[in-house]
Amino acid sequence: MCGIFALTQHREAAHIAFLGLFALQHRGQESAGLATLNKGQITLHKDVGLVSDIFSSETLGRLPGTAAVGHVRYSTAGGESGGNIQPLAARVNGLHVALAHNGNLVNAPELREDLERRGAIFQGTADTEIILHLLAQAPGADLGAKLKHVSGLLEGAFTLVLMSQTHLYACVDSLGYRPLSLGKFIRDSDPLTNHTPDCWVISSETCSFELVNARFERDIQPGELIEIELASGNLKSHTLPNTHTTSKTEAKRCVFEQIYFARPDSYLWGQSTFLFRETLGEKLALQSPVNADLVIPIPDSGVPMAMGYAKASGIPYAIGLIRNHYVGRTFIEPTQTIRNFRLRLKLSPMRHVIEGKKLIVVDDSIVRGTTSRRIVELLREAGAKEVHMRIGSPPVKFPCFYGIDTPKRRELLAQQMSLSEMREELQVDSLAYLSIDTLHQMATPQQRTQEGKSGFCDSCFSGCYSDSFAQRRLREEPTAFVGG
Amino acid sequence: MCGIFALTQHREAAHIAFLGLFALQHRGQESAGLATLNKGQITLHKDVGLVSDIFSSETLGRLPGTAAVGHVRYSTAGGESGGNIQPLAARVNGLHVALAHNGNLVNAPELREDLERRGAIFQGTADTEIILHLLAQAPGADLGAKLKHVSGLLEGAFTLVLMSQTHLYACVDSLGYRPLSLGKFIRDSDPLTNHTPDCWVISSETCSFELVNARFERDIQPGELIEIELASGNLKSHTLPNTHTTSKTEAKRCVFEQIYFARPDSYLWGQSTFLFRETLGEKLALQSPVNADLVIPIPDSGVPMAMGYAKASGIPYAIGLIRNHYVGRTFIEPTQTIRNFRLRLKLSPMRHVIEGKKLIVVDDSIVRGTTSRRIVELLREAGAKEVHMRIGSPPVKFPCFYGIDTPKRRELLAQQMSLSEMREELQVDSLAYLSIDTLHQMATPQQRTQEGKSGFCDSCFSGCYSDSFAQRRLREEPTAFVGG
Amino acid sequence: MCGIFALTQHREAAHIAFLGLFALQHRGQESAGLATLNKGQITLHKDVGLVSDIFSSETLGRLPGTAAVGHVRYSTAGGESGGNIQPLAARVNGLHVALAHNGNLVNAPELREDLERRGAIFQGTADTEIILHLLAQAPGADLGAKLKHVSGLLEGAFTLVLMSQTHLYACVDSLGYRPLSLGKFIRDSDPLTNHTPDCWVISSETCSFELVNARFERDIQPGELIEIELASGNLKSHTLPNTHTTSKTEAKRCVFEQIYFARPDSYLWGQSTFLFRETLGEKLALQSPVNADLVIPIPDSGVPMAMGYAKASGIPYAIGLIRNHYVGRTFIEPTQTIRNFRLRLKLSPMRHVIEGKKLIVVDDSIVRGTTSRRIVELLREAGAKEVHMRIGSPPVKFPCFYGIDTPKRRELLAQQMSLSEMREELQVDSLAYLSIDTLHQMATPQQRTQEGKSGFCDSCFSGCYSDSFAQRRLREEPTAFVGG
Amino acid sequence: MCGIFALTQHREAAHIAFLGLFALQHRGQESAGLATLNKGQITLHKDVGLVSDIFSSETLGRLPGTAAVGHVRYSTAGGESGGNIQPLAARVNGLHVALAHNGNLVNAPELREDLERRGAIFQGTADTEIILHLLAQAPGADLGAKLKHVSGLLEGAFTLVLMSQTHLYACVDSLGYRPLSLGKFIRDSDPLTNHTPDCWVISSETCSFELVNARFERDIQPGELIEIELASGNLKSHTLPNTHTTSKTEAKRCVFEQIYFARPDSYLWGQSTFLFRETLGEKLALQSPVNADLVIPIPDSGVPMAMGYAKASGIPYAIGLIRNHYVGRTFIEPTQTIRNFRLRLKLSPMRHVIEGKKLIVVDDSIVRGTTSRRIVELLREAGAKEVHMRIGSPPVKFPCFYGIDTPKRRELLAQQMSLSEMREELQVDSLAYLSIDTLHQMATPQQRTQEGKSGFCDSCFSGCYSDSFAQRRLREEPTAFVGG
Repeated sequence: MCGIFALTQHREAAHIAFLGLFALQHRGQESAGLATLNKGQITLHKDVGLVSDIFSSETLGRLPGTAAVGHVRYSTAGGESGGNIQPLAARVNGLHVALAHNGNLVNAPELREDLERRGAIFQGTADTEIILHLLAQAPGADLGAKLKHVSGLLEGAFTLVLMSQTHLYACVDSLGYRPLSLGKFIRDSDPLTNHTPDCWVISSETCSFELVNARFERDIQPGELIEIELASGNLKSHTLPNTHTTSKTEAKRCVFEQIYFARPDSYLWGQSTFLFRETLGEKLALQSPVNADLVIPIPDSGVPMAMGYAKASGIPYAIGLIRNHYVGRTFIEPTQTIRNFRLRLKLSPMRHVIEGKKLIVVDDSIVRGTTSRRIVELLREAGAKEVHMRIGSPPVKFPCFYGIDTPKRRELLAQQMSLSEMREELQVDSLAYLSIDTLHQMATPQQRTQEGKSGFCDSCFSGCYSDSFAQRRLREEPTAFVGG
Repeated sequence: MCGIFALTQHREAAHIAFLGLFALQHRGQESAGLATLNKGQITLHKDVGLVSDIFSSETLGRLPGTAAVGHVRYSTAGGESGGNIQPLAARVNGLHVALAHNGNLVNAPELREDLERRGAIFQGTADTEIILHLLAQAPGADLGAKLKHVSGLLEGAFTLVLMSQTHLYACVDSLGYRPLSLGKFIRDSDPLTNHTPDCWVISSETCSFELVNARFERDIQPGELIEIELASGNLKSHTLPNTHTTSKTEAKRCVFEQIYFARPDSYLWGQSTFLFRETLGEKLALQSPVNADLVIPIPDSGVPMAMGYAKASGIPYAIGLIRNHYVGRTFIEPTQTIRNFRLRLKLSPMRHVIEGKKLIVVDDSIVRGTTSRRIVELLREAGAKEVHMRIGSPPVKFPCFYGIDTPKRRELLAQQMSLSEMREELQVDSLAYLSIDTLHQMATPQQRTQEGKSGFCDSCFSGCYSDSFAQRRLREEPTAFVGG
Repeated sequence: MCGIFALTQHREAAHIAFLGLFALQHRGQESAGLATLNKGQITLHKDVGLVSDIFSSETLGRLPGTAAVGHVRYSTAGGESGGNIQPLAARVNGLHVALAHNGNLVNAPELREDLERRGAIFQGTADTEIILHLLAQAPGADLGAKLKHVSGLLEGAFTLVLMSQTHLYACVDSLGYRPLSLGKFIRDSDPLTNHTPDCWVISSETCSFELVNARFERDIQPGELIEIELASGNLKSHTLPNTHTTSKTEAKRCVFEQIYFARPDSYLWGQSTFLFRETLGEKLALQSPVNADLVIPIPDSGVPMAMGYAKASGIPYAIGLIRNHYVGRTFIEPTQTIRNFRLRLKLSPMRHVIEGKKLIVVDDSIVRGTTSRRIVELLREAGAKEVHMRIGSPPVKFPCFYGIDTPKRRELLAQQMSLSEMREELQVDSLAYLSIDTLHQMATPQQRTQEGKSGFCDSCFSGCYSDSFAQRRLREEPTAFVGG
Repeated sequence: MCGIFALTQHREAAHIAFLGLFALQHRGQESAGLATLNKGQITLHKDVGLVSDIFSSETLGRLPGTAAVGHVRYSTAGGESGGNIQPLAARVNGLHVALAHNGNLVNAPELREDLERRGAIFQGTADTEIILHLLAQAPGADLGAKLKHVSGLLEGAFTLVLMSQTHLYACVDSLGYRPLSLGKFIRDSDPLTNHTPDCWVISSETCSFELVNARFERDIQPGELIEIELASGNLKSHTLPNTHTTSKTEAKRCVFEQIYFARPDSYLWGQSTFLFRETLGEKLALQSPVNADLVIPIPDSGVPMAMGYAKASGIPYAIGLIRNHYVGRTFIEPTQTIRNFRLRLKLSPMRHVIEGKKLIVVDDSIVRGTTSRRIVELLREAGAKEVHMRIGSPPVKFPCFYGIDTPKRRELLAQQMSLSEMREELQVDSLAYLSIDTLHQMATPQQRTQEGKSGFCDSCFSGCYSDSFAQRRLREEPTAFVGG
């Protein structure tokens, strides 16, 4: 998973973009980068690490300009290599551009092979480089036209921001897998010219707007291409050509963004992420009630669902596990092993709250199941009498090919086991998931397609991928995914 | 404020002590240090920064030995200087010792002056160096006897751990201002000798025991001196001589540790910190009810009190502010200022939760009031209809001279203003504090003195200091405090 | 300027290549990189900085394999950008390759423009990326054939090492501007097979062989392409096709490598660099004698010439300036300026040696003249009675387009001024250069072309470039050069 | 060994002191520190590492004030510990002071034991802390009087600079083991007051004055105490009381400073270090001639002696070994060992110069002999026909107890072996040292004592120590020395 932030017409573009990326840090902690445009020159700084470690006032000072595009990147296979850190800056047909990408192209292997056959060289393994090559070879009078053309060749999820020396382009694939929102800075008009060019902000999530004091305008729609002329601030909206597998009326917004990935204070596709999750917890309580003393969340992701579960069930909400916020990257374990060492560094059980209690433990999802099993152990050691696990989403049974970094199919717990086997494996007294239907009912009328479908992608739960490429990828069981 | 961790008879003393300090990180983020004892040699590593940054497997590898004493230190005046980072290691009367100290000596200026007159030199400004000098000049057959003697010269709060080449000593001043607990590792007996020496653990807070898998044994009592022979693991308990201002029956445990400072998963003087705070919130709800839609905490310190308030009032508990856990130390602000920039980096308002709502905002205390005022602004901007502030402790009106790093009297909001003036200043619709009597009622029977007093120090609320030195310090209005 | 080091069939390829690069550090201090080949996989590590800072035993440990190619790079325009650090690793026609380049293509703008027109994208500004693109589009059964084809498209100086998953290729352009030598490790034969595959070493300078204990075999000839099969160690020599501007019998070895750039302990094209310079000094003494007390070098580059001058003139050699070897990169100057501050950090005058003396100051060349002028000032302040400057090469009047990082024509002192004006500008009592004819006489019989020409490139002195592209570049007066 | 730099009355005291220390870097690479005085406050920054790594413009910015004292420290036993890095800053009798020390007290164990008995605590192992303790307990009206008193208690070598809130003191022990010079900045008078306070500079070596543009005034004499009033710049000279072992007429200036330690561009006790060494080389040539082709130095320390030897013998001077200046601290050796790996990293043989030649190899001294033996190996491998070693000083047979960091007696090659055994061990064709008498003849009339003695300390050659403590130390054969 990744995050994108861009803005135009701001005297401190690099500083604001830095803050925008900081607010998107949860979308990618592996690496980050920022490209700014100054008098037709693109300057780029990127590195592995956290946003606040990569950028200092010194590095921001070396990024002059009034427009910027930034990116945060999640760990993926081969991700360590510098060639994959975004944005990518390149000279394409004599034009300097910077490109940032969030998503995953399902037809990347086919596109790459074809490009190599035609003499393209690849310095990294990210999809973004494929898109640059396609742009360089695309017909079209300008970059906007080329981008439109290229979008027709891409299958899967792609949310792109492209900065040229004159324009900023932003587009979302026709199925709208990943979010992208448009905002604006409110400013006084220039006293001399009486004119104020619009200062646009684009971000993967609305939480960025809150931090930089910008106003949310609207979401960029599935299949929409935004074109902003940097000099004037004029914005035009275009429609991307359909790919052969999609139809206008469909939409496949990643429901896992709403369940887990996005920040709780973001609005995603018109819904509050926090309230969405709280409601899932409420529905879960109604679907899978159990007699218990306390409802406790797995922090932090299980908090809203646990609060919802508690509210709907009437069972008190409590904090049974404290999260330690000082945890760094590398930690030295004594050779004389401490049981569940790494988990203990992060989570500390509240013995006096837990002891002798029947607990309902709420989490957003189970992937491999290893952490869940350890948490149950920790709670039992701290004296829990019963542990009932409730998951605020359906079982994750299939890999995601659209940008979420999930493991291979055979590593997914729910793929390997039945519910009762999982209950055994996790050593819980009971285990229940939310039904997939309930999830689809959560769609708002605006999110729904003309046919009344939810407009959600549920492929990680259902295995129903929207295209033949993803089905092929599943058959190939790739060992690693490289997305944006 | 500071934290201490020590242990004996463990093959991986440095690794375990590192983890113990890590669990105490909240007690001091300024600097940390660790001294180990190996074959009569004391090795020391200390630096400014966080525990996990200061120690690596390389530095831990250079700290051999089976006993260790560690320290984390909070920022204080002049704290940057290397001379103040603890533990202090020194040669005293030909013996190598390492000393760690938590607390603040109220008669430090007098002791220092007297020592200097007698030819002592001071390389730092911390109380710990005073104690080392007194030890060097104390009568007594061994370090234990010297330590006893020295304790009679110290006024104020001191919780000490002293490691010599043969013993580990730990003591708490007679009024027991700061917590110190004793734990033990459970181990198999040696198959050859059929004997298992006890492996003792000492920590400022019980949360350390949980992380390193040790068992809590008991608190070290006010006025108690523990002496552990390193070779045998034998532990003896001694009683410190009374100072002229204290009587056996008194105790002055810092209630602010329970209100704010200690980790919620620690047991402090026999009480769960989390439940203590939750109960304060409940009592606050009963004492100061108000009609509202939601109860929201200021994260993270206000969470237990807000949960208690919600439970007792029946008003729903909600999360109205999200805390960002990626915040680093230095942050670059754009010149074109963003309102409440630094607060926004840390806290993000949940607009959709807050909008149009009457809020009860719960926090543990108000010190200068600047952050509180900014939080109220942030909530109003996010659409809060009413903001009622409830504080789970009495107004902080006086500086602490016993180790909590509070500002000078004239900087404390509640010292300068009446309740209605504060309400005006904070721009809240109503403001209420917990009564000081309620606080004292929270004492357990075991915590109470023979006269039935609570055994709590409430000087930051009441201005009633237990000794004449603190009163003198208040009159002098010092600009800075240097504690342990 | 840059340096290249590569080797095959060595169990510790990364470690040896690291040492090889370390010995070439003088050829480029801006950045360095190393690519190794292990079981068909290429791994790459590169960064800005010095070789010994970029590589640690940890990073070398992450570079497994038995073949390696490494590169050090000198500061050039735009050099800071990560995209220019070599080697470049890429996938070309489905094959993984790593490419390192030393030199400068004079027709780079034309090649780049043409490639962009055909849809190539450029992520950096180095010539090396152009060569990768050309390789990807070249006809030919294998990489060797493609490389041959590509060499016919390149004008100017190129010394290349290309590692594929099966072969190591090395070539030098037909005019042989830059040096490249072949060496071999001496090894025992395998006791089982009685066979020892050859372990080849390739380096820009022979000083690398000395450090890693390899034996110098021979220079790679102008227009030669070496092909080593990695599995067997078999080496074949091919001939590159002539470009239209060159003829077999010509050679244009960069004489500035011998005058200044190469390490004094390297053998360059069959000559000892140190002795070459010493002889220049001797000839300079005969051509431009002057009555003086002492001959002193500008350290370190002027040392061999000064020794030669002293020997031939009979005037004693002395050390008048001490070089400080602790000088780091960034240095803080007091605001109350110290005259010639930066020079003083590096060079300290020997007042007692200099005072009252007539000095002959010997240096290898004058480029902008600023440092020379300051050195004269320093010597005068230290009491020198007369300062006679003698330069062991002809006046540098023209920019180099073949890989030496010289400034623009108008910044070259000797381009702007006559000899007497320079004498005035440098405030010296006399000034003399070596004649260009003397330089050409230095060529050994082996170095000479069939026509008896010296086989040296003297374009920086004469302005006679070997091709029309360089002449065009001179007319365009580019502001910056990007070479390898 | 260590270096000291101090100055007064300069608006940029920290910056100038930083440069002064930089020029003294050769006297200590282990750690460095700087204390400045601003409005009665002493600020200190010190760390392990090189001067240019420890100080940045940021750290210098945090060292305000117009007076400063700095120190560089050589590696010594236990030196890694932060407690030993100088200057030491402390509060002594209510006064803030900073103390820097160069030398070694031979009665340190006795003084330390006595102080500990009287209740002093030691946080480090450096002599400097002993001196601070003695100052704190000394009688005397002011620090100057106390310092005089303390100097009478110290045996051995001590060169001290002590900065208080009002004065700067500098003194040299009565035998004057270590150098200390006084300089002055030349400044315009204040236009308003028509008065210019003197800006004094004090440094271990005169090379610092050259860098910061100060004028050398004079050496501080053996047994002299300088007192500078910071407010007025007034300087007074006092005489230290004699210790019982010294008489006025004696002096024991460390001749090893002149032979090896000091920078070649420094004036030491009125002599040019470079010329001193060159003359030693000349005398060596006359005393120990040998028939050979070339005289080559071991760089860099052997250069002046080799030049002198060449001049006196008429045998040409040549450079046979090139020193690599990029060598860092840690270096990774391949497991498949390269012979004399670490030496090769530093020194590269000039094969074409050496091959087939009879060499006279000149160095300043032989300590353990390991490096010398390896250099001979390297020269033989590079083809040297004969290797004659000539050492420009007498054999080092005894440890130094006055501040030079020499190994224990039994590790010194010349202590264990006869000349012919050494010749065998080093594998040289001949070996000769300078006679000790020649060394003493080098003393200038000014350096000589009233009895006409040279005024040099030659204890490392002769074993004749000036005091009974050093003799005791020799008998005790300590494993490590901790000096300043």
